[in-house]
Amino acid sequence: MFITFEGGDGAGKTTHLRLLAQWLGEAGYDVVTTREPGGTELGRSIRELILHGGDVAPKAEALLYAADRAHHIATVVRPALVRGTVVIADRYLDSSVAYQGVARDLGLEEVRQLSLWATDGLMPDRTILLDVPVEVGSARVGKSQDRIEAAGREFHESVRREFRLLAEKEPERWRIVDATPDVETVAASVRAAVLDLFDRG
Amino acid sequence: MFITFEGGDGAGKTTHLRLLAQWLGEAGYDVVTTREPGGTELGRSIRELILHGGDVAPKAEALLYAADRAHHIATVVRPALVRGTVVIADRYLDSSVAYQGVARDLGLEEVRQLSLWATDGLMPDRTILLDVPVEVGSARVGKSQDRIEAAGREFHESVRREFRLLAEKEPERWRIVDATPDVETVAASVRAAVLDLFDRG
Repeated sequence: MFITFEGGDGAGKTTHLRLLAQWLGEAGYDVVTTREPGGTELGRSIRELILHGGDVAPKAEALLYAADRAHHIATVVRPALVRGTVVIADRYLDSSVAYQGVARDLGLEEVRQLSLWATDGLMPDRTILLDVPVEVGSARVGKSQDRIEAAGREFHESVRREFRLLAEKEPERWRIVDATPDVETVAASVRAAVLDLFDRG
Repeated sequence: MFITFEGGDGAGKTTHLRLLAQWLGEAGYDVVTTREPGGTELGRSIRELILHGGDVAPKAEALLYAADRAHHIATVVRPALVRGTVVIADRYLDSSVAYQGVARDLGLEEVRQLSLWATDGLMPDRTILLDVPVEVGSARVGKSQDRIEAAGREFHESVRREFRLLAEKEPERWRIVDATPDVETVAASVRAAVLDLFDRG
């Protein structure tokens, strides 16, 4: 079972990934949580290059994210799935499509194909979009030195719009969760958004 | 004018690239020499990751090389070509095809397509294959800590075979130079292998 969280900065991905993992763990499931970029030692080095390495050509940036993903899937996610573990990831290929595909002016479909090549076609069983208005997300994050987080409001609006479009195109895989309310309310919505996966199993 | 040198370790690429650049410079051409991986600051960090970062999943390695290439072409090679400078590169996409495509068991054509995507389709005007028997190249290199150089004789034989196959498939672009003789003899063959490009200009 492979579950991914998507959404803009400040949507609460890290918090709700942790709460969902805890809840599934208490229900008796083996759970591994991981993140992109940075779910491996190599990935952390790549993340460092992208965020603090100066100007990176757009295709180079897309390829670095894909390299992180290829390594992460091959060395962490696939081995865990093979063991029967539930894997919950903070961001996956939809982030690449939303961030790179739209905002960086690279083709959506080619960015998706790049990720699929990198991962031998691994798709999540469920993707949870934590959706918040940009001003709510930005307020939660506060100030940050990250290049992407400094890129301004219009950028974040585009990303939010793109995530919603992606979710609407694949309603079987995606659940859109309104991440504006308090943590407990959102956590309950997140649990509800994966329940059918575990009922089936 | 974009010229690339290809060949296994110890073929003499660095030496002959320098000699050709010097000769063209003396003939009045603006010349830039560069290398892959590692032709940019970002590229040097990527090279460091690949060679000394521990086990890297094969597709991740191919994507890291492609990221280096995308950045290198966008920030160094294309701007120089636009200025009318002759660019001579130590390795380019044929190295990826030969090393990754064959030896790492990734598909040749997909590795080539990855590079072409990364570089917006930039192909060299001339590629010089410095061809030496594996034992000659190995003896020249001596001992090295690099992971790839430790991978053994059979690996190097496959790479050499693959370079020759690539050269035979595109005879207009490639020239195979026997790099076994002394430096002066090989340098003369290299000069002869690019002469038609400059006669035309």
